[in-house]
Amino acid sequence: MLKRTHTCGELNSSNSGQEVILNGWVDRIRDLGGIKFIMLRDRYGKTQVFFDPNENQDLYQKALKLGNEYTVSIKGIVKERPADAINTDMKTGDIEIHATELEILSESETPPIYVNRDEEISENLRLKYRYLDLRKEKMQKNIILRHRVMQAARNYLSNKDFLEIETPFLNKSTPEGARDFVVPSRIKKGNFYALPQSPQIFKQLLMVSGMDKYFQIARCFRDEDFRADRQPEFTQIDFEASFVDKEDIFEIGEGLVKECFDKGLNIEIETPFKRMTYKEAMNKYGSDKPDTRYGMELNDITEYFKNTKAKFLKSVIDENGVIKGFSIPEKANEFSRKKFDELTDLAKQFGASGLIWISKEENKDVKSTIKKLAEEEINNLLNDGIINDGEVMLIVAGELSKVNKILGQLRATIIRDEYVKKDGFDIMWITDFPMFSWNEEEQRLEAEHHPFTMPNVEDLEMYKDEPLKINSQSYDLVINGYEMASGSVRIHRKDIQNKVFEIIGLKEEEITDKFGFLLEAFRYGPPPHAGAALGMDRLVAVMAGEDSIKEVIAFPKTATGSDPMAEAPSKLSEYQLKELNIILKND
Amino acid sequence: MLKRTHTCGELNSSNSGQEVILNGWVDRIRDLGGIKFIMLRDRYGKTQVFFDPNENQDLYQKALKLGNEYTVSIKGIVKERPADAINTDMKTGDIEIHATELEILSESETPPIYVNRDEEISENLRLKYRYLDLRKEKMQKNIILRHRVMQAARNYLSNKDFLEIETPFLNKSTPEGARDFVVPSRIKKGNFYALPQSPQIFKQLLMVSGMDKYFQIARCFRDEDFRADRQPEFTQIDFEASFVDKEDIFEIGEGLVKECFDKGLNIEIETPFKRMTYKEAMNKYGSDKPDTRYGMELNDITEYFKNTKAKFLKSVIDENGVIKGFSIPEKANEFSRKKFDELTDLAKQFGASGLIWISKEENKDVKSTIKKLAEEEINNLLNDGIINDGEVMLIVAGELSKVNKILGQLRATIIRDEYVKKDGFDIMWITDFPMFSWNEEEQRLEAEHHPFTMPNVEDLEMYKDEPLKINSQSYDLVINGYEMASGSVRIHRKDIQNKVFEIIGLKEEEITDKFGFLLEAFRYGPPPHAGAALGMDRLVAVMAGEDSIKEVIAFPKTATGSDPMAEAPSKLSEYQLKELNIILKND
Repeated sequence: MLKRTHTCGELNSSNSGQEVILNGWVDRIRDLGGIKFIMLRDRYGKTQVFFDPNENQDLYQKALKLGNEYTVSIKGIVKERPADAINTDMKTGDIEIHATELEILSESETPPIYVNRDEEISENLRLKYRYLDLRKEKMQKNIILRHRVMQAARNYLSNKDFLEIETPFLNKSTPEGARDFVVPSRIKKGNFYALPQSPQIFKQLLMVSGMDKYFQIARCFRDEDFRADRQPEFTQIDFEASFVDKEDIFEIGEGLVKECFDKGLNIEIETPFKRMTYKEAMNKYGSDKPDTRYGMELNDITEYFKNTKAKFLKSVIDENGVIKGFSIPEKANEFSRKKFDELTDLAKQFGASGLIWISKEENKDVKSTIKKLAEEEINNLLNDGIINDGEVMLIVAGELSKVNKILGQLRATIIRDEYVKKDGFDIMWITDFPMFSWNEEEQRLEAEHHPFTMPNVEDLEMYKDEPLKINSQSYDLVINGYEMASGSVRIHRKDIQNKVFEIIGLKEEEITDKFGFLLEAFRYGPPPHAGAALGMDRLVAVMAGEDSIKEVIAFPKTATGSDPMAEAPSKLSEYQLKELNIILKND
Repeated sequence: MLKRTHTCGELNSSNSGQEVILNGWVDRIRDLGGIKFIMLRDRYGKTQVFFDPNENQDLYQKALKLGNEYTVSIKGIVKERPADAINTDMKTGDIEIHATELEILSESETPPIYVNRDEEISENLRLKYRYLDLRKEKMQKNIILRHRVMQAARNYLSNKDFLEIETPFLNKSTPEGARDFVVPSRIKKGNFYALPQSPQIFKQLLMVSGMDKYFQIARCFRDEDFRADRQPEFTQIDFEASFVDKEDIFEIGEGLVKECFDKGLNIEIETPFKRMTYKEAMNKYGSDKPDTRYGMELNDITEYFKNTKAKFLKSVIDENGVIKGFSIPEKANEFSRKKFDELTDLAKQFGASGLIWISKEENKDVKSTIKKLAEEEINNLLNDGIINDGEVMLIVAGELSKVNKILGQLRATIIRDEYVKKDGFDIMWITDFPMFSWNEEEQRLEAEHHPFTMPNVEDLEMYKDEPLKINSQSYDLVINGYEMASGSVRIHRKDIQNKVFEIIGLKEEEITDKFGFLLEAFRYGPPPHAGAALGMDRLVAVMAGEDSIKEVIAFPKTATGSDPMAEAPSKLSEYQLKELNIILKND
C-alpha cells in the first residue's frame, strides 16, 4: 500500500510542487475536456485529483475503472489551481493533485446510500447501512464533536481531582424507577442481573468509600418506550463529590459545560449560569425546563377579571383559581379560526376545560372568544400592554398549578411549530424542586427526585404537616428547553433520612428491601456528598443543532429498540436457552 | 458544615501557624499524657490532630465521643511537631493540628473491616463491605493508578487523532467465540440482545465508515468460568486505524503503553519493544507469553542423545522427535526427590509421558533419573555448560510442539512457585502467529485469531497446501508473562478473504449467517485497517504488582459471578418475567 503522506484536508498552495500520497474514498468523478477529475475524501476533508490522458495514458485508463466509494491511494504532485478554478469553500480549494500513481485498495458496489448527496432517506435504510451513513460529512462532524465533548469533560473533571471509576454493568434489579433490562445468570440459575439505569447507588458508595470525587462517562439502560428522544442505552457524564454543597456542584457543572462548549464548538459560554426556582419557572413559563429565548412569559391576569360577567371565569376566581395567559408576537394576522380551534383542542388534551384567545391585528378590531363578554377587560389588557398590536394571547383559567402546566405545554407547542429555531444557547439552573409529590394513582406521597435527596432542612421543620411545601436541594440544568442535567445534595444524616422515610410512609421492611446495602453503608461514617449527571447524547445533540439524539450516536436503535444492520435482537439457539434454564412462552 | 480549606495530604511546616479546616475520617485515636490524638484520613493522606483538655475542656469532651471511621470536620491551627515526634514516612509528618473546633458529620458503627489494619480477611467479607475495603490505602492507590492509566491512554490516543466512539451494548448474539451474556427483549418477544464480547465488528465497521482512527475504553462481557484472572465484565483499551500496517500499530501501542507507565507510575519504559516470533517464543520458552526475566531458556539437546542407550529416547529421535529441557539455577540443593516426583506428576498432567531430571549440587555427584543410562551424555551437558553447578535440568522428549508446551508450563510453574516475584517489566511483542489451527475435536481447520485476520500474503501463496504453516499478521503484547494486548491487520481484500474462508471450509451460507453484515459492509470500499485491544484490568494489575485483577476493579464479582454486597444476581418478580415472556425451568 502506498501510505499517505498527508490527509485529504491539509494541502494548500504552500505545498505546491510537493510529491504527496493521499488515501481515501472516491467522492465524485467528473470528466472535463477529456481529463478525469476525482474528488478524494477522508475524515479530514476533500482534495481534488486529476488524471490527464495526454501525460500518462495507462494511468488514465486505470482511473477510468474507478467508481464512487472506491478506496484508493494516489501519488501525485500538488499544483496550484488556475485562478478561475479556486474554490474558497474548501480547505484545499486552492490546489489539486496531478496524479502520477494510482492504487485501488478496494472496490465498491453501487452504495444503497449516496454519501455525497443530501437526500431524505428512510431511517431504516440509514441504520441498515449505518457505515455508509456515517461517511456523510454531517455525521462525521457530529461524531467528532461528540469525541471532543467527551475528552473535554474528562480532562476538566480529571484536572479537578475527580477520579474516573468504572461501576459494574451486571447489577441487581430493583423495583424502583424505570423498567430494567435484565441478564439471566447461567451459574445461579433462575436469577438475573439488571443493567444499570444509572450508577447512582454505586457513586454514592464510592463517596462512602472515601474516593472523594468520582466521575464516569457511563452507559445507562432503560427499557422504556424509545422515542426520538430516548434510546434503550444512553450515556451520562456522571459525577459526585464529598464535603461539598450545592454551590460547589453548580461551580463544577458550570465549568464542565463551559469547557465542553469551548473545546467542542469554540464558543465561550458565560458563567455563572442564570438560576430560577422551580416555582418561578412554573409561574413564568409553565415548565421546569423553559426555553426563555422565545419570551412569551405567562401573565396572571386574574385581577382584570375580578368583576367579570363571564360566569365560568367568576366561578374560577371564587374557587381561588387563576386566569393566566401568554402573548404570542406577530401571529395575529397568521392565526386563523381553524388554528384557534386546533389550539383549543390541544388545550383540552392538556387538561383545560377550554381556551380563551384574544387576537389583535394591527389597525384592526380585536377578535376573541370572549369579545362580547369581556370587552372592558380586553381593552384594559390592551391599554396595559399585556396584549400588543399583532399579538395573540392564549388564556386558561383554573387551579394555578394546572393552568401553569397547560399554558407551558401550549407555549412549547407554539415554539416548536411556529418559530424558526433560534440560534444561541439558553442555559440555566432550575433549583428548589419540591421534595415530595402526590401519587394520585396510589394515593400516597412519594419522593420527587429520590428519597436520598436532601430536603431544605429548615423546610423540613417548618412544613412537617404540609410535606408538599417542602423543597429539596435538587437542581436541573436546562439548555434550550431540554433537561440537560439533574442532581442533588444527598442525605448523609440518619435523622433526616428517617424523617423522609416517615413522610413517604415507608416501613422498615420495604426500606431494607429497596435500599438495603446503601443504608447499610451509611452506618459507617458517610461523608456529606452531592452530585449530578449530564445527558451526553442530548448535550451533543443540542450543541450540534440536532433535534434527535440518533444523529449523535454512532449506532442507535430504532423506535422498537432494534438494529436493522446487525439484526438485533434475534432468536437464541435452543442450546443457549437450555443453558440459561429459560423457556419462552408461546413457543 | 465547616468546609475544608486543605486536604489531609498537603499541610507541612510551611503552613505553620495557619488556621485550617480539614474534612475526613477518624483513622486512629490515641491518648498520650491526657491529650487526645486523632489521625484524620482522606483520599489525599493523613494528618494528626490533637485535643488538649487544658485548653478547651468542652472540645475535649466532644472529641471523647469520636470513634474510628467517624466523619468529621476539624478546625485548628497548624503546629510544627516537636523534633522527636516528626514522622518522615508521612507527607504531613512534620506538623500536627491543634484543634479549636470539631463538627461530627456522621457517626460510624464498629466497622466489620478494619480500615487501618492490614489483615487477611475473606474475599466474601471484602466484597460485601467493599465500600470499607476501598477505604484502605492500597485500594485507593490502585483505583487512583487505574484512573491515571485511563486518562493517559485517552489523552495519548486522542492526541494522535483517534476518535473515541461508543459502540452499542445491546447487540446480536453470535455463535462464534465465548459464551454471550444475553438480554431478553420486551418489545420483540422471544428475541434477545447479547452484551458485547468486544467491539471488534463495530470498530471494523467504523473503519468502513471512514472514521479513520477509533478508540474506546470499552466494557466487554464473557459468560465463562470466572477465575482469579477473569471477570464476567472486563475493560479493554480498544483501538483501530485505517491505512496503516503492522508497524504503525506497534508504534501506537508502544507509545500508548509508555504513556500509561509514565503517567501512572512515573516510570520510563524503553521503546521500541523487543519482538519475538511465535515460533521463537515457543522454541525458547514453550509459551507465547513468556516472562523472560527469569531466563531458563529451553535447550534442544537431541544431538547429545543421538547414540543413546535409552530405548525410549532412541525411539523419540527415530520418530523425528526432540529432547529438550531447561536448567533452573540454584535449586539443586533445594529440590528433593519428593519435589521431583511432584514435577513428574505435573509433567504428565501437562501431557508428557515422563520427566527426566538432572540435578547438580555444587561439589556433589550428579543425580538424575537417567544417571545410569546416560552417564556420558550428562557429562557432556555439564562440560558444555548446559547444566551448571547448583542447577536442576528438567527434560522432556517427544514431538517438538508438544514438548515445547509441556516445558513451557513446567517453567511457568517453577517461576510462580519457586521464585520471589522480580521487579521491573518485561515487555515484548509476539508476532507471526499461525493463521490456522487444527480443531482436534471437530476435525477441521479454524482461524487461530479470527477469520478476518490478514495472513502473511506470501505465506498464503507458498503454503496453500500446508495451511498450518501460514502465519498471520497478528500480534500480542506480553508483559511479565501476561498477554496484555492482542491485535492484527484485518483482511480488506475480497480475494484474500475468500481464500481464507475456502481454507477453513466455510460455505456461503455459514459465512452469511456468521459474519453477514460485516461482509456486506466490505462490499463498499473498505480501507486497509489494523488494530489491537489492551486489557485494562490486567495492565493496571501488573503495574500495581497485583496478582488478581480484582484488586484493581472497584466492584468485582466473586468466582460464581455474584456480588455479595448488592446480592446480585437475584430473582425477578413474576411481573417482570411475564413482561419478558419468559418461564423458568424447574420453577
